[in-house]
Amino acid sequence: METRAVPREVSHAGGMTHSLEAACGLQRNLPWRKLPAYLIGQFLGSFTAAATVFGLYYDALYDYTKGNFTVTGPTATASIFSTYPAPYVSLLGGFFTEFMATVMLLLGILIIHDEKNNGALKGTQALLTGILVLGIGLGMGMNTGYAINPSRDLPPRLFTAIAGWGMDVFTAGHHWWWVPLTAPMLGSLAGVLIHKLFIDFHNQPVPESGNEKGQPVVETSTL
Amino acid sequence: METRAVPREVSHAGGMTHSLEAACGLQRNLPWRKLPAYLIGQFLGSFTAAATVFGLYYDALYDYTKGNFTVTGPTATASIFSTYPAPYVSLLGGFFTEFMATVMLLLGILIIHDEKNNGALKGTQALLTGILVLGIGLGMGMNTGYAINPSRDLPPRLFTAIAGWGMDVFTAGHHWWWVPLTAPMLGSLAGVLIHKLFIDFHNQPVPESGNEKGQPVVETSTL
Amino acid sequence: METRAVPREVSHAGGMTHSLEAACGLQRNLPWRKLPAYLIGQFLGSFTAAATVFGLYYDALYDYTKGNFTVTGPTATASIFSTYPAPYVSLLGGFFTEFMATVMLLLGILIIHDEKNNGALKGTQALLTGILVLGIGLGMGMNTGYAINPSRDLPPRLFTAIAGWGMDVFTAGHHWWWVPLTAPMLGSLAGVLIHKLFIDFHNQPVPESGNEKGQPVVETSTL
Amino acid sequence: METRAVPREVSHAGGMTHSLEAACGLQRNLPWRKLPAYLIGQFLGSFTAAATVFGLYYDALYDYTKGNFTVTGPTATASIFSTYPAPYVSLLGGFFTEFMATVMLLLGILIIHDEKNNGALKGTQALLTGILVLGIGLGMGMNTGYAINPSRDLPPRLFTAIAGWGMDVFTAGHHWWWVPLTAPMLGSLAGVLIHKLFIDFHNQPVPESGNEKGQPVVETSTL
Repeated sequence: METRAVPREVSHAGGMTHSLEAACGLQRNLPWRKLPAYLIGQFLGSFTAAATVFGLYYDALYDYTKGNFTVTGPTATASIFSTYPAPYVSLLGGFFTEFMATVMLLLGILIIHDEKNNGALKGTQALLTGILVLGIGLGMGMNTGYAINPSRDLPPRLFTAIAGWGMDVFTAGHHWWWVPLTAPMLGSLAGVLIHKLFIDFHNQPVPESGNEKGQPVVETSTL
Repeated sequence: METRAVPREVSHAGGMTHSLEAACGLQRNLPWRKLPAYLIGQFLGSFTAAATVFGLYYDALYDYTKGNFTVTGPTATASIFSTYPAPYVSLLGGFFTEFMATVMLLLGILIIHDEKNNGALKGTQALLTGILVLGIGLGMGMNTGYAINPSRDLPPRLFTAIAGWGMDVFTAGHHWWWVPLTAPMLGSLAGVLIHKLFIDFHNQPVPESGNEKGQPVVETSTL
Repeated sequence: METRAVPREVSHAGGMTHSLEAACGLQRNLPWRKLPAYLIGQFLGSFTAAATVFGLYYDALYDYTKGNFTVTGPTATASIFSTYPAPYVSLLGGFFTEFMATVMLLLGILIIHDEKNNGALKGTQALLTGILVLGIGLGMGMNTGYAINPSRDLPPRLFTAIAGWGMDVFTAGHHWWWVPLTAPMLGSLAGVLIHKLFIDFHNQPVPESGNEKGQPVVETSTL
Repeated sequence: METRAVPREVSHAGGMTHSLEAACGLQRNLPWRKLPAYLIGQFLGSFTAAATVFGLYYDALYDYTKGNFTVTGPTATASIFSTYPAPYVSLLGGFFTEFMATVMLLLGILIIHDEKNNGALKGTQALLTGILVLGIGLGMGMNTGYAINPSRDLPPRLFTAIAGWGMDVFTAGHHWWWVPLTAPMLGSLAGVLIHKLFIDFHNQPVPESGNEKGQPVVETSTL
């Protein structure tokens, strides 16, 4: 019962569930049979959002590019929809950036929801996750535009391929497209692992479960 | 009794009730007989606010325009009070922008207040609605200045017509004035409909109402 | 006894109690005999803060002005400490700005603490008051620098008069110094009055008390 | 029992515990035998963070400096990792800035957690501490880059010494490195002292402890 509650709650927090998909083997909060629905839901949501933004800013895009939608060059606009690496970034540097940014995202989400360790107030987690994503963007977004979510990057990229930018969206940045697909998945697994090893294993049990190892119940309950 | 509580609460949330007026048939939270008072109240409030801003910045307006208040041209100032489309925006594009921005506003407000689905903490909704409006402005405000509320746009426009800008406030932007009046109303209806169809119908009933469809009560209550 | 609780709580909210001093006759939350201590406390706090900022930025001030501390001119620095009107602002415009900005401040503070009308969550009022002051600064600060508090303006002005800027701090802006002293006091009275007339009188009594028209004791204590 | 709860809780609040280490003699919340683990933990965390940032931005650093990592000069980059004083700041001015900024940090943290005096809501303290640090940075960061924490400054400085910037990181700014090590420790002690003298000693006891001096219990409990 309780295992079902968590992904739903987290999915509310800014649509940043993606990592929990990859991490569901570790966290065991999401049954495997629900994974396809989450994947398809996030894909469709992200694709629809890209199409909506295209509709909203079609006039502006046309005005700025004179109708010539390009991935590179002086009036490049593809990076409005999906991420591309900065010119100075190596493939390794870009991969490491997406990996680390997703580690930070997962660490943040798990700490915000860590009720055993002074987690955030119920009903404020979505706000805090938004601030977390803003912080990751400001601090770690310069290299790669912080996809930190496969479903935030691939569906809009597919949309741009269809909507007039062509197959350049896949070849640009030395075939960059696969990095924001794989690095966040590995990063989310690593983030969950780090949280388990360095924080969660050292948390005290919740009061109800009794008094283990002689530790006073009061200590954890008042955190 | 309870029906009175909801509009009051939402009206507190940044003055963004407007959409609920249009949507009161769908949401059934506001009795029809109360609609005129809400309409008149919002109209007077918005008109008074425009007059106050005019008073506050009369010196600055006079200094900047040399007393020549215009809707277009190098020292145009009418858009301080009501919205006008950017030069590149088509009528269809502008209408769609106001429509979609109001859809997002309503979706956000309804999710913030969705107590069946991990809604925001009571007493923090006004803050979150403010952040929501800020986000809509940053993400969707470039084309049209995001009126997303008929009563935020028409009364200040009337005020500027009277206060020295003249009838240009109605003819500018290919008679733009009717768009922020109609598009937000349709958008708010669509937003409520989308929330009903995609979220609210799938919410579990609140615990008190018992155990329906065999779903465990715990699941929803712990969300 | 219980009446003492209120100013303490509000004083926590960003140090913006000032208006309640002026308004204590209307709100009746602060006994008159406590007024002098509040006035002296705010004066000393504000004066000490100005001296601390002077100490912190003495090197920068000296570097920027070559030791010549002036109120006007190309390297004017007095407005770091107290407020001065923008060049285009008339005395009436400046007075009205400070008056209206303080009306908004008081309306905001009273609504944040209005427990009968979906007030803010206890423990979040200080944050919201900070956001309120930020909003007033962004929206209404251009003309006069939003003193909106006599004790925020006069003590730093006295400090600058002593610390090297001389009596120009009182003559600048057509003897501006008395405006941020008087306009906020009148504005705070007007703000409390507006809240009483347009909001508080229409609030429902708190359920438990059930004592209408006799004004239950609970009402003031829970502000 | 209760004494253990506090540092853990505060340590959650943005990693800004440092001052409580120095202040543990005054606050008596942290047993001395736990101090080494806190010192080592913060040192390792800060050093690892510096190494991670170096990894994340190695490509950008190399691109900007052509591989020549320097502490001063046109392409200086050392201040990305640890703090250096602005050119105009004297040693005394810099020391005073770090001292005062840490006084403000400690005053803020203690007030946020001051449950006897309308402290912040449990679960929102981390957010408020983040806003506090942002405010200190905006208001007091210009002179010295606000280290306000020895363990935020020395470990990254050591890292840069090793990673290619050399011993200049210790000689730059007239051997600045020892200031952000000592001034915050003294400042944190002073902050705790000021809070004790001016606020905490005047707080009423928590309701449970009974009714002292004839003061009603309700007064403090409703703050």
